Amino acid sequence: MTDKTASDFSTWAKTRQARIEEVLDEALPPDSQEPTKLHGAMRYSALGGGKRVRALLCYAAAELCNTEIEVADAAAAAVELIHAYSLVHDDMPCMDDDDLRRGKPSCHKQYDDATALLVGDALQSLAFDVLSTPQLCANANQQVSMLNILAKAVGSTGMAGGQAIDLASVGKALSQQQLEDMHQLKTGALIQAAALLGAANGTLEQISSVHIYAENIGLAFQVIDDILDTEADTATLGKTAGKDADSNKPTYVTILGLDVAKHLADQLHKTAIAAITPFGEQALRLRELAAFITQRNF
Amino acid sequence: MTDKTASDFSTWAKTRQARIEEVLDEALPPDSQEPTKLHGAMRYSALGGGKRVRALLCYAAAELCNTEIEVADAAAAAVELIHAYSLVHDDMPCMDDDDLRRGKPSCHKQYDDATALLVGDALQSLAFDVLSTPQLCANANQQVSMLNILAKAVGSTGMAGGQAIDLASVGKALSQQQLEDMHQLKTGALIQAAALLGAANGTLEQISSVHIYAENIGLAFQVIDDILDTEADTATLGKTAGKDADSNKPTYVTILGLDVAKHLADQLHKTAIAAITPFGEQALRLRELAAFITQRNF
Repeated sequence: MTDKTASDFSTWAKTRQARIEEVLDEALPPDSQEPTKLHGAMRYSALGGGKRVRALLCYAAAELCNTEIEVADAAAAAVELIHAYSLVHDDMPCMDDDDLRRGKPSCHKQYDDATALLVGDALQSLAFDVLSTPQLCANANQQVSMLNILAKAVGSTGMAGGQAIDLASVGKALSQQQLEDMHQLKTGALIQAAALLGAANGTLEQISSVHIYAENIGLAFQVIDDILDTEADTATLGKTAGKDADSNKPTYVTILGLDVAKHLADQLHKTAIAAITPFGEQALRLRELAAFITQRNF
Repeated sequence: MTDKTASDFSTWAKTRQARIEEVLDEALPPDSQEPTKLHGAMRYSALGGGKRVRALLCYAAAELCNTEIEVADAAAAAVELIHAYSLVHDDMPCMDDDDLRRGKPSCHKQYDDATALLVGDALQSLAFDVLSTPQLCANANQQVSMLNILAKAVGSTGMAGGQAIDLASVGKALSQQQLEDMHQLKTGALIQAAALLGAANGTLEQISSVHIYAENIGLAFQVIDDILDTEADTATLGKTAGKDADSNKPTYVTILGLDVAKHLADQLHKTAIAAITPFGEQALRLRELAAFITQRNF
């Protein structure tokens, strides 16, 4: 990657990050609207944080597939709202019991458990609300299909199911395959949905390639998360570091060791890139984003 | 109502109750599928309980509006899944902390808090999954619109918002208007959605009338819930009786007194019936259902 390209990517990413922030700001009810506490807590949890990797994936896939920007906006907002909901519920005392999120008190610490429960519930509904905006897509059948992809990625055979398997695996010895299956649901399903929703307007070949790309980059993302969780300190990561290892949860690092985990992330990165290579410059942002995800040291 | 009609309604309702049970059984993943505990807990929470009033409303509105039975099935399942999710989360310790639901241990008592959290989350996703089944409606724009109605009824300006206002009102003196606004969101929004989704195929006049009907019958339902909560004993009701009054939550009975509350329920019933009177025999099931809801003594 040349300096020129890196600079371009950085500008592209910053523009898209600012854009999704505006889209989310618009989608979330103002905190002056009743119930004000709930709306304030929803905005606290969904705005102003994170690298917006899922939104960037959605926008990058949309550029490859010439998906309309309004459709990409709604899809990116929907996946970020779902992601925000999952973090709020995951942090609750009955789940991971985490007090910090993105360097701030997590939702239930800033507010209370009941509010955090409702915030997660309402953010999920809002994701489907945004994506079901009437007349969003020229082709309504495509929009129904997008809603179905999101619903399946989020439910018991997607993200929520992965969370359940994760909870059940605390203190258990998992094989690499079992760990991969769990992450495939817990984080992979939503990352794939982000890319697939962005690719809504693509040809079958493009959609299929984006699917393979997202599968591999999603897994790489998780492997790197485990590596960062081992290496980073709490201040850098913005959440309690070493938490997964502390709570006796299996990670790629505990199963494979640090070096093999890094090699695996590299392999997954290469496989993701290979899938989109046929599309040349049109896949530039997806290629750059893969590098961004696998080289992050935040 | 003649004996003949009453018997017909009873048969109609039983048939529809059995039907929605089958539709839900089909929609919910089997408890043999991973994650088995989550799927078992989802089935425990969504199957085999309740009068299915929301599904009946949906089917009755569908009969008035000639909505296809497959569409009515999906809509009825979606609202019942949302209702089941709301009960699971409402019963959790950080919310109403209720140990009993429909005469059985509530989800978090039967399983655990983390599972109950995920059950509610996944039931919500499943509702949108079912309603976004590709090719469900001949008119995909209509399906997108149905999904949007459901999402808005469930989120922070609907059911979840009503729950937040309810939580904030514990120990406070509410006016009748404030209580009505709260219930309009907390239970009314989903009841209206149930009827409106069933009415998907209706004329504008039919949909508008069903809207007025559902608004009034939803409120009547809540007033009667408060009356039953005061009068019934725990065994009959299948949940802890007098709970709302005990926890210092305002109810129609505490604000209006029992007699005025009963009169109000009667008035709301009459207004609901008046809205659908122009449709004569085609609105038979909606009329009977209104009587069923306002005369229930279970």
